[in-house]
Amino acid sequence: MSWIDDPAFAADKPFGPQTLPYGVVETADGPAVAVRVGDHALPLRPIADEFSQELAELVSADSLDPLLAAGRPAWSALRARLHELVTATAAPDGAELLPLAETRTRLPFTVGDYVDFYSSRNHAENVGKMFRPDGDPILPNWSHLPVGYHGRSGTVVVTGTDVERPSGQRKGDDGPVFGPSVRLDIEAEIGFVCGGPVARRVSTSNAADHVFGVVTVNDWSARDIQAWEYVPLGPHLGKSFATSVGAWITPLEAFAAARVPVPDPGHPRLDYLVEDSSWGLDIDLEVRWNGTVVSRPPFAGMAFSFAQQLAHMTVNGATVRPGDLFASGTVSGPEKRQRGSFLELSWGGKEPLTLDDGSERTFLQDGDTVVITATAPGPDGSVIGLSEVAGTIVGA
Amino acid sequence: MSWIDDPAFAADKPFGPQTLPYGVVETADGPAVAVRVGDHALPLRPIADEFSQELAELVSADSLDPLLAAGRPAWSALRARLHELVTATAAPDGAELLPLAETRTRLPFTVGDYVDFYSSRNHAENVGKMFRPDGDPILPNWSHLPVGYHGRSGTVVVTGTDVERPSGQRKGDDGPVFGPSVRLDIEAEIGFVCGGPVARRVSTSNAADHVFGVVTVNDWSARDIQAWEYVPLGPHLGKSFATSVGAWITPLEAFAAARVPVPDPGHPRLDYLVEDSSWGLDIDLEVRWNGTVVSRPPFAGMAFSFAQQLAHMTVNGATVRPGDLFASGTVSGPEKRQRGSFLELSWGGKEPLTLDDGSERTFLQDGDTVVITATAPGPDGSVIGLSEVAGTIVGA
Repeated sequence: MSWIDDPAFAADKPFGPQTLPYGVVETADGPAVAVRVGDHALPLRPIADEFSQELAELVSADSLDPLLAAGRPAWSALRARLHELVTATAAPDGAELLPLAETRTRLPFTVGDYVDFYSSRNHAENVGKMFRPDGDPILPNWSHLPVGYHGRSGTVVVTGTDVERPSGQRKGDDGPVFGPSVRLDIEAEIGFVCGGPVARRVSTSNAADHVFGVVTVNDWSARDIQAWEYVPLGPHLGKSFATSVGAWITPLEAFAAARVPVPDPGHPRLDYLVEDSSWGLDIDLEVRWNGTVVSRPPFAGMAFSFAQQLAHMTVNGATVRPGDLFASGTVSGPEKRQRGSFLELSWGGKEPLTLDDGSERTFLQDGDTVVITATAPGPDGSVIGLSEVAGTIVGA
Repeated sequence: MSWIDDPAFAADKPFGPQTLPYGVVETADGPAVAVRVGDHALPLRPIADEFSQELAELVSADSLDPLLAAGRPAWSALRARLHELVTATAAPDGAELLPLAETRTRLPFTVGDYVDFYSSRNHAENVGKMFRPDGDPILPNWSHLPVGYHGRSGTVVVTGTDVERPSGQRKGDDGPVFGPSVRLDIEAEIGFVCGGPVARRVSTSNAADHVFGVVTVNDWSARDIQAWEYVPLGPHLGKSFATSVGAWITPLEAFAAARVPVPDPGHPRLDYLVEDSSWGLDIDLEVRWNGTVVSRPPFAGMAFSFAQQLAHMTVNGATVRPGDLFASGTVSGPEKRQRGSFLELSWGGKEPLTLDDGSERTFLQDGDTVVITATAPGPDGSVIGLSEVAGTIVGA
């Protein structure tokens, strides 16, 4: 019986000892690296003496940056030692558990580059039908490479940060008009936080050594701004106002029992995208809009794994650095209630959703709150959790 | 008569006392903030006693990051004091001039987000004709907003860094093929380095308070990779392998005599893009390919000023931070020898250029070196210089 007296800290719960995600919490002693145990945060600086000197320095920092840079051997050693500490019968000297409900989290790492992919076939098909109604919804390159683009790293914010409705140009009847977005949307995604040595041409086999962990992402999108601006250089202001991420990064090691094959593309892959053992992940997302579950997008159906995305992103010689973040692209499944954006769920605003309070929605209204969570199968029938990413819209 | 005995340190030369660009050089005492005077670097840490305490701290750093964050009043005070020091008859105690030919420079600041615009009408028309031969070369949004996208900040490198030929997917006769790019190109651009307080919704009137200085940029581009990947989310691997910038940032204040009106778009601008006093800049670029001048792109013809670009980039609520970099987009004029990319100069590879050594070129070969420099009119008939951005292609 662990010293941690929290019913949420159990193998059949998302944040039991099989998960152990990392974050940064505000403490009386300043920002501190912490691990999530059930519904509590355990700051690590006060128990740094329990670790080797190398690990003690990493966990005593005020962000995850040094840990991200340290690389896979340090990540594994830290996780193993943490597992011992949180499953012991006695608390380490100085350990203090902070209830999450009373604890402020912060963006736990310095975001380097942020790349957003587009690897759900269902999402690409749905958006293609709406944005380019006269053409083939899936473009010729899509099934051969993980299409993606760079987003704005300076506006990545942690869960709980309010999102101000963006303003911008949108198409009017007689030229563009300017004003607050009237088609403000979400994108439910899974993000991958990079670490380890700076590297180029990371192979699919080595990708895991450059991915520290996994996080929920909401890539807020202003569809009216995006539709007007995005040809030919891609999304810019329709996305750059905010991207929210969960406060707790679940280590990649926690997903060992969640690996599944990536769907067969129906044609051979170029060599650099072939995986020895696929890094598809059986993660189920859940999207709540003002408390109503509106979608359960299945990540297992994504057309490219994170390993293929990372291999692609660096195959041209581009470097990947600790702190780089890349996201999967909107996760949408084949069923309507598996779609990861409101653009798709409301089919461009034509089919309103009814929330539990009876109100109807197409796009986001001021005051609306969206919460995205996710889980995956863990070892021995346990469950692995990805912490929520939540945000509330405030008026322009 | 200044104590600086360098014929290049003169008002009719690009790096006289009217220019005074900042960079970071390697010294025996580690990296040091320096100012360029003629063909020499003057490291500032050894003469920090000559400045106020606030400025002394800024110039004693090992990068320009603290200076960028300090904001316009500090920038003006530093520039004024530096002008006194470099035009005095006696050298400050401890001053040491380092010949540039024997001095290593480094990337002088930490790049936050990197945004690349597309604001030359001639460039957009030329590329549109080649990439979308069946449609209108200028798309409907282009004249209403400065089209742009985020590039990869982690691969911004300083002049002199070799550029390895990128590999990637390109379109083949029977599906994509993988290999080293066969259409490797440059983009001659002007970049703007941001500073001052973190800000949102920067107006065109306030833009100058958020731009520390101006720098030459070469946004290397693999046209074959780009053409295959870029629909619908824009350029990614065709650009992300490297972007080179000059080592010396010329302060915005140096361009007071170079301001010109931005060309009339022929229709009203939305309010947030209207300028009280235009920040168009009369900068002339020069592109040398293995020593041969192949193009002289005129920046004065750009359709949007940096102030309009910055206002656009932040009008949706996105923040701008010290260290953010944005570039103008390829600078191309109406004449053939004013085009800022080899794609345009060779018209998609169909019209080879002959270099001074008699060799012919369409796109870049391994071993080729490209050098981009620029000048602008300074006060009282002087000339303002933008330091070179140079790079040599090495094989994949």
